[in-house]
Amino acid sequence: MRFVTAIYQGREFIGVQQEKTIIDLQRAEEKQLGTTDIPQCMIRFIELYELLEEKIKSIMEVQDDGVNVERGVYAQEQVTIIAPIPRPRKNIFCVGKNYADHAIEMGSKDDIPSHIMLFSKAPTSVVGHEQVILHHKHITQELDYEGELAVIIGKEGTRIKQEDAMSYVFGYTIVNDVTARDLQAKHKQFLLGKSLDTSCPMGPVIVHKSIIKAPHHLHIETRVNGQVRQKGNTEQFIFSIEEIISVISQGMTLEPGDIIATGTPAGVGKGFNPPKFLKPGDAIEISIESIGTLRNTIER
Amino acid sequence: MRFVTAIYQGREFIGVQQEKTIIDLQRAEEKQLGTTDIPQCMIRFIELYELLEEKIKSIMEVQDDGVNVERGVYAQEQVTIIAPIPRPRKNIFCVGKNYADHAIEMGSKDDIPSHIMLFSKAPTSVVGHEQVILHHKHITQELDYEGELAVIIGKEGTRIKQEDAMSYVFGYTIVNDVTARDLQAKHKQFLLGKSLDTSCPMGPVIVHKSIIKAPHHLHIETRVNGQVRQKGNTEQFIFSIEEIISVISQGMTLEPGDIIATGTPAGVGKGFNPPKFLKPGDAIEISIESIGTLRNTIER
Repeated sequence: MRFVTAIYQGREFIGVQQEKTIIDLQRAEEKQLGTTDIPQCMIRFIELYELLEEKIKSIMEVQDDGVNVERGVYAQEQVTIIAPIPRPRKNIFCVGKNYADHAIEMGSKDDIPSHIMLFSKAPTSVVGHEQVILHHKHITQELDYEGELAVIIGKEGTRIKQEDAMSYVFGYTIVNDVTARDLQAKHKQFLLGKSLDTSCPMGPVIVHKSIIKAPHHLHIETRVNGQVRQKGNTEQFIFSIEEIISVISQGMTLEPGDIIATGTPAGVGKGFNPPKFLKPGDAIEISIESIGTLRNTIER
Repeated sequence: MRFVTAIYQGREFIGVQQEKTIIDLQRAEEKQLGTTDIPQCMIRFIELYELLEEKIKSIMEVQDDGVNVERGVYAQEQVTIIAPIPRPRKNIFCVGKNYADHAIEMGSKDDIPSHIMLFSKAPTSVVGHEQVILHHKHITQELDYEGELAVIIGKEGTRIKQEDAMSYVFGYTIVNDVTARDLQAKHKQFLLGKSLDTSCPMGPVIVHKSIIKAPHHLHIETRVNGQVRQKGNTEQFIFSIEEIISVISQGMTLEPGDIIATGTPAGVGKGFNPPKFLKPGDAIEISIESIGTLRNTIER
């Protein structure tokens, strides 16, 4: 299933995205089953998912993709989709330089990491699909995009073994790891250049892992104003999802709703000569196979 | 006032630390005034502080440091003090190398930063005064201490000017920025080596800014098993609190309850030759003038 956080007439809800409709799970549950177990908040939803899975399936079985507002079935254009996790409970984890070609474009072969490089983005940086990215012209002249597959953690775990790692995954989404290259360089540690307000577009959906059988064979592409800039495949990862989850959790407890962006392929603005940084009005689209397209424009 | 988060008979509350007692503000308010406006959660308390300040003062005026459990006045030994913000809403911000002597001991004069170096610690790393620090022997052989003054942000702000910065401060506490030096070096970006579970001891109190008139003239000292290791004064800061708040907030919104650790003076374990890393059973005490002492021991 494809889960969204969306708003219908001011009410935030967890929805399932169908071809033409979005189903408000809480309202559908109430109308169909008379119960109200499904929460409105995605983090809580992820925490409870194993308990709720049968109920969600039974709700979905009777859906036919016909709009029925009373029963919580809205047309896509009736709702506003926001970031699937609008306010993460901690910073978003990001793996740096997880595609060799990107590591090389950022410097040289010496930049290919032999150990996972982990940094973070503040929760205040999150915005949803189609929301505006601020240009922050007063502090950066080098705003850049990074299209990334993000893993959503489904349950708490510490010292997770690689062979068990996939059972800790809830699903996948798309993240644009927007980066102020000048701040990233100036401040050495990446946090500041990676955490500007609106610099973490995320979504539009979280696709449950049951739909993505081969997360290491997903095509990923980033376009700026329609022009292809990044073109890669998650099979190029230096560190696999299993390895990332295992390494992070060896000393740090992972929790439901944690977000791990898995790194970006070659083709970022800084990698061009001369660099192609983002300008006011630019539209950035990141498409990942089986997930969809995350689209945002830079403030004019 | 000196605020704590504490537990009395399973109930978590915001308390004011007096010489011999701790006053449960919510219970005292209820018994004295018949109202229940004071929250149980420190982040909410900080958010509401300006609205609640008069009420808190009127509650405190009638206190005489005599124990009265019924009215929410407990003896210090009756309660367990936990971290003042047990679960921050985002990673803890940390300024790297903010004392020149420490920058030099970590490398050379070239390591003295010309711009603020900012990294973070995951919220899952927070523990309180007297809580055990796990040794994580399975992944690190170089566990180190860093005694630091931490600033607690009091209200939301973006693009804060240096001259306004102090009005965004709620108060101050002590943080031990426990660091796995081997992981810090191996993973390049600091997040992983700084975010091990229990690697962010914090507290015991948040001292309101009204008590600390000169935050840039505070003596800070770290002792390991009674032996003085770090001895500094916040007057040695390379970047002042005003500058840190201003620089961070230029592109990133700061929020009530945000924690900014301001860097550590010279004398960390790695700075000695040979290095003096932490061993199982070691007791680390960090004392900061006007705040108190944060004490933790390493798991045996």
